[in-house]
Amino acid sequence: MKRTERIGALIRILSECPSKPYSLQYFCDLFGCAKSSISEDIQTASHALKETGTGYLETIPGAKGGVKFVPDISNEDVLALQQEFCERLRDTSRLLGGNFVYTSDIFYDHGIVSRLSKVFARKFRNCGANYVATVETKGIPLAYNVAHLLNLPLIVIRREARISEGSTVSINYFSGSYDRLQKMSMSKRAIKADSKVLIIDDFMRGGGSVTGIKEMIGEFGGKVVGIGIAIVAKEPEKKKVSDYSGLIYLGEVSSEKKIIEAIPNTELF
Amino acid sequence: MKRTERIGALIRILSECPSKPYSLQYFCDLFGCAKSSISEDIQTASHALKETGTGYLETIPGAKGGVKFVPDISNEDVLALQQEFCERLRDTSRLLGGNFVYTSDIFYDHGIVSRLSKVFARKFRNCGANYVATVETKGIPLAYNVAHLLNLPLIVIRREARISEGSTVSINYFSGSYDRLQKMSMSKRAIKADSKVLIIDDFMRGGGSVTGIKEMIGEFGGKVVGIGIAIVAKEPEKKKVSDYSGLIYLGEVSSEKKIIEAIPNTELF
Repeated sequence: MKRTERIGALIRILSECPSKPYSLQYFCDLFGCAKSSISEDIQTASHALKETGTGYLETIPGAKGGVKFVPDISNEDVLALQQEFCERLRDTSRLLGGNFVYTSDIFYDHGIVSRLSKVFARKFRNCGANYVATVETKGIPLAYNVAHLLNLPLIVIRREARISEGSTVSINYFSGSYDRLQKMSMSKRAIKADSKVLIIDDFMRGGGSVTGIKEMIGEFGGKVVGIGIAIVAKEPEKKKVSDYSGLIYLGEVSSEKKIIEAIPNTELF
Repeated sequence: MKRTERIGALIRILSECPSKPYSLQYFCDLFGCAKSSISEDIQTASHALKETGTGYLETIPGAKGGVKFVPDISNEDVLALQQEFCERLRDTSRLLGGNFVYTSDIFYDHGIVSRLSKVFARKFRNCGANYVATVETKGIPLAYNVAHLLNLPLIVIRREARISEGSTVSINYFSGSYDRLQKMSMSKRAIKADSKVLIIDDFMRGGGSVTGIKEMIGEFGGKVVGIGIAIVAKEPEKKKVSDYSGLIYLGEVSSEKKIIEAIPNTELF
């Protein structure tokens, strides 16, 4: 393989498995090269990646040293994404009964979800999480993508205990959105003791559901180390949780006035 | 930017958005290069990608021509993945009551899901689908990943109609796994008329749930053009659907005998 091709292959392999450390020896064996050549290749590869604005390579020093791809997104691209997201949300054909807003198409569209994930991966890169957790259903692609970028396993908390989950722990919580008591269940096999968990979800109104997840993680002896939410409702101003990071705010929603107000959170970074 | 870096950047940009066509002009503008240079770069990039065994570049001829990244996986890697998957499944600590098998950790692990997705993306690359559909919950990361690789939107069919989905169509179907009537609901906004749909799911026993999805897609005037299932139970031999592609078969499952039988489907390609 020529050097140019080697660098291309290096970029593909590393960026396909974000945040996963590879030893230099792995590439020496793969390409049949000396470590010094691989080190040089990594520098060039990192430079090429930085030019795309989608990430960079980080080398891990020491005898067991290696290299990993760190996904990234620039402040400029975060703002562009927020604006695009808000623009899509403001489309009043999304208005549903009870002043709910239809968002499934957005949260099932990889074109936007993959960029949203990068924002949260950047935000929570150093939070020390061992897991990413979400509660079904709409936030699953986003949470899965964030977990992929951070090289972490995903936990999906179910609304209802299912036989295929084995024994579960269930809790009840009050959902402001649905104005009623809701239930969530998590498999006892889903998490190891003393874990640190990053919560990712598509939407938060009063924070009841996130509080439920926090309580659930606590039941398993775990600790929540970060909360990333794509859309945060402005009302109620006082949430049940305080330490969350929202990407955009949902303001007034009214079928009568035909309005959906959406505002970027410019204080995310 | 030097040529080597340009090729690295090209690989990153194209492979980050699989199956998405980019015009050559896009890269000419991005790198400030002539089309002839970009064409040469694409050839080198495609060669480097082929060496990684993870995909290749396909050029689209004509005046509006362009290039896209086609994700791929070799027969050898498919077999290795099947064997690893079977190995993990056979772990008898997965045995649950009622001879169910715990698989959530596998389907929420991007390390295996991203490779499973490549198998289905290769299999259904030319099926002409406009959407990938699944029914919640466990198959969502897999279906989302396949949708990403094929550059298609995802549809998630819910078990229960929710207010945030707007008006829905609901159907009832018989689930052999749970030995009871189940319900599924799909938002009227989820799909355009006359669509072609690829179904991706984590597990199939008798095919009741997939038949339900087919019926549902039919209700929307759509057509199912492919069915990809990660784990297919050997029993019952006679399924309600026939045109499915399973990655591995689940044979005997017995808590008493402490056995989980898992076999690769060697006739997938």
